Amino acid sequence: MEAYFATRNTGKFREVESLALKYGVKVKHLNFEAVEIQSENLEQIALTSLKSVLDKYRLPVFVEDSGLFISSLKGFPGPYSSYTYKTIGFEGILRLMVNVKNRKAYFLSVIAFGSPNISPKIFRGRVDGVIVSKPRGEHGFGFDPIFKPKNSRKTFAEMSVEEKNKFSHRSKASRAFFKWFKNMFNV
Amino acid sequence: MEAYFATRNTGKFREVESLALKYGVKVKHLNFEAVEIQSENLEQIALTSLKSVLDKYRLPVFVEDSGLFISSLKGFPGPYSSYTYKTIGFEGILRLMVNVKNRKAYFLSVIAFGSPNISPKIFRGRVDGVIVSKPRGEHGFGFDPIFKPKNSRKTFAEMSVEEKNKFSHRSKASRAFFKWFKNMFNV
Repeated sequence: MEAYFATRNTGKFREVESLALKYGVKVKHLNFEAVEIQSENLEQIALTSLKSVLDKYRLPVFVEDSGLFISSLKGFPGPYSSYTYKTIGFEGILRLMVNVKNRKAYFLSVIAFGSPNISPKIFRGRVDGVIVSKPRGEHGFGFDPIFKPKNSRKTFAEMSVEEKNKFSHRSKASRAFFKWFKNMFNV
Repeated sequence: MEAYFATRNTGKFREVESLALKYGVKVKHLNFEAVEIQSENLEQIALTSLKSVLDKYRLPVFVEDSGLFISSLKGFPGPYSSYTYKTIGFEGILRLMVNVKNRKAYFLSVIAFGSPNISPKIFRGRVDGVIVSKPRGEHGFGFDPIFKPKNSRKTFAEMSVEEKNKFSHRSKASRAFFKWFKNMFNV
């Protein structure tokens, strides 16, 4: 059985597709803009997005939503990470963090899967780390140059895709999902 | 005829209610949490919210959405102003604006009205001004202490409600709406 990944983000699709292959799961791209609601809860956002896709397509489908949550900024930018990145960028985040001692932050990824016959199921991936004081690295995207996961010397942007996949929130959520999917459908 | 204002924000309701009275329009409070989608377009957010209320209530109803758009921050915090206020506050905005010469900003308010028999109608109110370098004043709420409208020496937070209503985005949108409403229904 195949699973359809509803996303407008081709880079995200490729990242998840390559992980799926390791589990023998075939992921197809559904280039559909799911409705995203305003909420501080990623799971609620993902579940509503999933519903908006299932209202339109009778397919086994999943959506993914993620965000960077910074402790000293009360979770900002959280669910609005991509808008925040597009406007104030990581430079803006670093400005907000000047002279701030508590640098703790985490990335969270939530995958919601459902089909016309299966009620929605949620998978989470979280990676804890810190906001560094100066951007480092050229790989990845978004806030990768300013986020350094725990137990790593490198920021996400200093890692290759393979390295990042060992740590990343999205790969953790994806692995949990594909493991479940494989068992569920004996693929 | 009455119009129902769907909002969870009692302060906002009172502000709009008092303006309505001047036009002889009776506004009732519908304490209902409308769905807010993620979008950079306030009108799109308001129209979707309105739809979510009309799906539930067969009433003449309106919703209001507003945001602060800062020129040098590419419109940030825009539609996510209330989340941004709750997390990084106006202190965060001032940090982002240190040594920034272009201080231009505007507040935008969008009201969407509809009923089971009338297709949605949009009313806008915009007030241009600047972000000051230090917070001033104790009135109002949100980003009021750091926003000074054009042709005023005072920030919104230094004004009484009556003074603010002369300038404010929300009162402009409300007036346009109530004027139309009064004509439409001969109230």
